[in-house]
Amino acid sequence: MKGAEALLRALVASGVEVCFANPGTSEMHFVASLDAVPEMRGVLGLFEGVCTGAADGYGRMADKPASTLLHLGPGLANGLANLHNARRAGSPVVNIVGDHATYHKQYDAPLATDIESLARPMSGWYRSSARPEEAASDAVAAVEAALGPPRRVATLVVPADVSWLGTDDAAAEAVASDAAAKRASRVTPPPGNQVPSDLVDSLAHVLRSGEPAAILLGGRSLRERPLLAASRVAATVGAKLLSETFPGRTERGAGLPVVERLVYLGELAAMQLDGLRHIVLVDARAPVSAFAYPGLKSELLPDGCEVHVLASGWDDPVSALEALAEAVGAKADSAVVAAATRPPLPTGALTPASLAAVVGALLPEGAIVSDESVSAYIFFPAATEGAPRHDWLGLSGNAIGQGLPLATGAAFACPDRPVIALQADGSAMYTIQALWTQAREGLDVTTVLLDNSSYAILNFELKRVGAGAGGSAARSLLDLSPPDLDFVKLAQGMGVEAVRAESSEEFAAAFKQALAEPGPHLVHAVLARGSGL
Amino acid sequence: MKGAEALLRALVASGVEVCFANPGTSEMHFVASLDAVPEMRGVLGLFEGVCTGAADGYGRMADKPASTLLHLGPGLANGLANLHNARRAGSPVVNIVGDHATYHKQYDAPLATDIESLARPMSGWYRSSARPEEAASDAVAAVEAALGPPRRVATLVVPADVSWLGTDDAAAEAVASDAAAKRASRVTPPPGNQVPSDLVDSLAHVLRSGEPAAILLGGRSLRERPLLAASRVAATVGAKLLSETFPGRTERGAGLPVVERLVYLGELAAMQLDGLRHIVLVDARAPVSAFAYPGLKSELLPDGCEVHVLASGWDDPVSALEALAEAVGAKADSAVVAAATRPPLPTGALTPASLAAVVGALLPEGAIVSDESVSAYIFFPAATEGAPRHDWLGLSGNAIGQGLPLATGAAFACPDRPVIALQADGSAMYTIQALWTQAREGLDVTTVLLDNSSYAILNFELKRVGAGAGGSAARSLLDLSPPDLDFVKLAQGMGVEAVRAESSEEFAAAFKQALAEPGPHLVHAVLARGSGL
Repeated sequence: MKGAEALLRALVASGVEVCFANPGTSEMHFVASLDAVPEMRGVLGLFEGVCTGAADGYGRMADKPASTLLHLGPGLANGLANLHNARRAGSPVVNIVGDHATYHKQYDAPLATDIESLARPMSGWYRSSARPEEAASDAVAAVEAALGPPRRVATLVVPADVSWLGTDDAAAEAVASDAAAKRASRVTPPPGNQVPSDLVDSLAHVLRSGEPAAILLGGRSLRERPLLAASRVAATVGAKLLSETFPGRTERGAGLPVVERLVYLGELAAMQLDGLRHIVLVDARAPVSAFAYPGLKSELLPDGCEVHVLASGWDDPVSALEALAEAVGAKADSAVVAAATRPPLPTGALTPASLAAVVGALLPEGAIVSDESVSAYIFFPAATEGAPRHDWLGLSGNAIGQGLPLATGAAFACPDRPVIALQADGSAMYTIQALWTQAREGLDVTTVLLDNSSYAILNFELKRVGAGAGGSAARSLLDLSPPDLDFVKLAQGMGVEAVRAESSEEFAAAFKQALAEPGPHLVHAVLARGSGL
Repeated sequence: MKGAEALLRALVASGVEVCFANPGTSEMHFVASLDAVPEMRGVLGLFEGVCTGAADGYGRMADKPASTLLHLGPGLANGLANLHNARRAGSPVVNIVGDHATYHKQYDAPLATDIESLARPMSGWYRSSARPEEAASDAVAAVEAALGPPRRVATLVVPADVSWLGTDDAAAEAVASDAAAKRASRVTPPPGNQVPSDLVDSLAHVLRSGEPAAILLGGRSLRERPLLAASRVAATVGAKLLSETFPGRTERGAGLPVVERLVYLGELAAMQLDGLRHIVLVDARAPVSAFAYPGLKSELLPDGCEVHVLASGWDDPVSALEALAEAVGAKADSAVVAAATRPPLPTGALTPASLAAVVGALLPEGAIVSDESVSAYIFFPAATEGAPRHDWLGLSGNAIGQGLPLATGAAFACPDRPVIALQADGSAMYTIQALWTQAREGLDVTTVLLDNSSYAILNFELKRVGAGAGGSAARSLLDLSPPDLDFVKLAQGMGVEAVRAESSEEFAAAFKQALAEPGPHLVHAVLARGSGL
C-alpha cells in the first residue's frame, strides 16, 4: 500500500477518528486514501485556523487527538495561532503537514519554506517522515506524543513522495495491529506519573500549617474527580481553591465544586493572591500577568509566597489530589459544591451582564461552552455556576480566533451534546469560516455573537498601559465600526441560520429557539452601546 | 519622546506612509503614537493576513514599503502566508511585530512564543529592537533592508517597553532627519547594482550564436522600460521572451510587449522550454515545477540547456537589459508590442473563458488587477493583452489567500486607479475579511468572485499526482458545496455592495456598473457547472 494509506491505518489503529483538513497538491495521496480507510472521517475547513482550532476542541473533549491535514509551510502558518492555544491548553493534537517530495525540496519551488522553523514554537514533538516504510510508525509515535504525558501538539511532516510511494502491506499492517493492541491494553489517555507519597505528605504538612495557602488548578485537574478531591482538601485545611484564568476545560455546574478563577486583570489577580504564603500548583503554572504594564510587577504572587508543585503536566493530578485529600484527613463529603440555581431571565437592555444571565438561565444539561467572550468573560462564571452540569472551554493561549473552531471540534467529539460558542465580535472575524464547516456537517452549535462594535479589551488596555485615552487615529484601530459587521448575513452566507437580537427578551427568545432546533445557529447579540468595558 | 513615537517618526522620515495594523496590548503605545505622527496612516485589518497581504500589494505598486503592525507570535503567524507571497514577489515590506516587554519574556506569559523562529522563514532581514534609544535607527534599517537590493520582507520586533520607555528627543529627531536627507539624495527604490559590461557582452555573444534561446523575465524586469529593452533583444536575436508563471507585477496592455508566461502545469511549461540551448534569467529563477509528480522531472529545462544570469535580485535589470539591447545591436523601434484590441462582449453561459472576455472587453485604463483566479488564470492573458495599459499582480508565492488583501493594499498605493480582484472562491475564504477594510476605507476595488463551488485546481491535481479520480471521501475535501457560499451576503455583511451574476450578459452589466461607481463592489460570478477545469 501507499505510504499515505499506511499512515492513515496507523492513525486509526491508534484511535484517531477525525482529520480536520485543508489540503493541497502535496496532500492528495493522503486525501485519496481516505476512501480506503473509512474509519477516518475527513472534515474540510475553509481555512487552516479552523482545522487546528477544531482539532484542539476535539482533543479537549475527547481526551484523545484528532489529526489535522495542512498544506506546506504557508498552510501550517495559517494554523499556528490555534496550535498555540492548543499547546497552552495542554490539548492533544496530531498536526499533519504535507511537504514537497523529498527530492523536490532542493529546487526551492514557490511554496517551499522552512517548515520546521515554523512548527517548532507550537509543537511539543516534531518529526518529518523520511520514507514510506516509516510513515506508519511515525504516525503511531505522533499519537503517543500527543497523548503524553505531557499532552502535546505533535507535528508530523509528510513529504509527498513518502505518501505516494509504496510500502510493504504486511509491515504496515503489523505496525497498525501493534498500535491497536497497545491501545487496547492501556488506559487512554495515559493518566501520567504517580506523584511520590513523600511529596504528598510534605504538601499536606504545608497546607495544615495554618499559613494562608491556595491550590491553583489547571490543565487536567479541572474535571469532576480531581475537583472534588481538591475541594475536600481546600475545605479541610482552609485553603483557597483557584483556577487558571482561562483553563482549557473545566467541568462545572450544580453538584460540582465552584473554583474561583484568577482574574485576567493582573491588579485584581494580585488581590486574589494577596496574603498567601503558599501556593500549590496542580497541572498549572505560577500566576503571571498576561502582559507587562509600566510600573506593575509581572509576577502576581505576593513577596515571600512559596510555590509548590503537586503535579506537573507529566504527572497524574487525579491520584495526586486524592492522595492529598487522604493525607490532610479530608472527609469524604467535605467538598463544597454549587447548588442548583439559575438567574432569573432578565428584561430590558441587552448588556454583557444580562446576556450572561440569559445563558445561565437557559444553559442546557450537558452543554459544552466555547468561551471567547473576551471583554465580557467576567460575567459568565457566576451566572452559570448553578446551571446543570456542563464543560467550559477557555482561551488558554490568549490568541483570539479560537472560539468558533473550538466549538466545531467539540461538536465532533460529543455529537450528542449541545455546543455553545460565546463569541466576541472582533475575535470572531479571525476564523469566521468555521461557520461553514458547522453548516456542512450539521453540527449542533449555537453561536452567541457578542457585538460591542469594538476591540473593547484594547480600548481598556490602551489606558492600562499608560498610553492615554487615544486620539482619533488610535481609536480607529480599536473600533469595528463603521461599517457595522452584519453577522446575520455573514452566517447566512455560509449556510448557518441566524437572527439578530437587541434586547434581553429578544436574545432569550432567540437563544432558546436556537437551542431547541438541531443544527448550527447564530444569534447576533447587539449589546447596548456603553454597556461593556 | 517614547520609543514608539521615535520609531514612527523614523518610519515616516524614511518614506513609510501607511501602517496596516491588527494590534494588541503590547502595541498600544505604537497605536497611541499615531495621533502624534499624522503623516502615518493607520489602517485596521480584521485579520493579520489582510494586513500583510495589503502591505505586499502596496509595496508592489508603490515601489516602497508600507508597514504592518502585528501582535506577538500568534499575530505574526496569522500574517505569515502573505509574507511568504511578498517574499516570493520580491515585495518591500516593513513587518513590525510587537513583543512582550523585555523583562516580561522570562515569565513565558500565555501569548509568549519564539517569534524569531516564526519570522525567519519569511523574512530577508530580522531584528528585535533592544532599547528605546535604538528604535528609530532600527526602523530606518528596516526600511533600508526592505527597499534592498534585494527587496525584502524586513521584520522588526518591538518589545512593549521599547515602545513605552522614553528616549532623547533630539537624538530621535536626528535619526529621522538623517533618514530624510539620505532619502532625498538618492533614487527610490534603489535600482540595484550595475551589471558588468563583460557579462553583458558575453550574453550578447551567446544570444547572437543562433542557438535556441529564451529570456526569462521576473521580479522588477516586467515594467515598461525593461520590457521594451527585452523585447528588442528578443526580436533582434530571435529569442523567446518568457516570464515567470505568477510574476509579482507586470506592466502590460496595448503598446507594451507581450510576454509569454510559463504555464503552471509543468508538462506544458516543459513544452514551452523544449529545444532551448540557453536561458537568460533576469531577476528570475530557473524554472522548476511547482510540485513534484510521480514520474515527472522537477526541473523543467531541457537537458543541456545552459542557464545564464543577466541580473539577480541584487542587480539593476533595467540598465542590464538596455545594455544588452545595445550589445546585440537592437534597433530602437524593434520591440514587438501589443496592438490595441479587445475581445467582443460574449453572451450566454458564464464560463471562465467568457468571464475573461468580459474583463478584457471592459478593463479600464490604468487598472490594477490582483489575480488569484487560480484554475481560471489561463484565460486572462490573451483576453486582456490588447486592453488599455494596466498592471497585473500575480500569486508569486502560490500561497492562496492573497488576492483580496493585495487588492486592498494596491488601492492605498494608487488611490486614483481602479483596482480589480479576480478572485477564486476557495481562496477568497482565507482572507475574506479584507472586504471590510475596503468598505471602511471606501477603496475603489471591484472584486470578481469566480465561483465554481470547488477547489477545482485540486480536483485536477488529484489526478495529476496519480491518486485517481478520488472516491466520495476524497472529493468531499475538494468541493465547496454543500452548503453553497453566498458571497453577496458575505460581502454585504462587511459593508460591500454586491450582486450575483449567472450569465455572461449579467456579469458584463454588473462588472460595468461596479467599475462605474466609486467604492468597493463585489460581483459574485457563478460559473456554469462543468465549464472550468
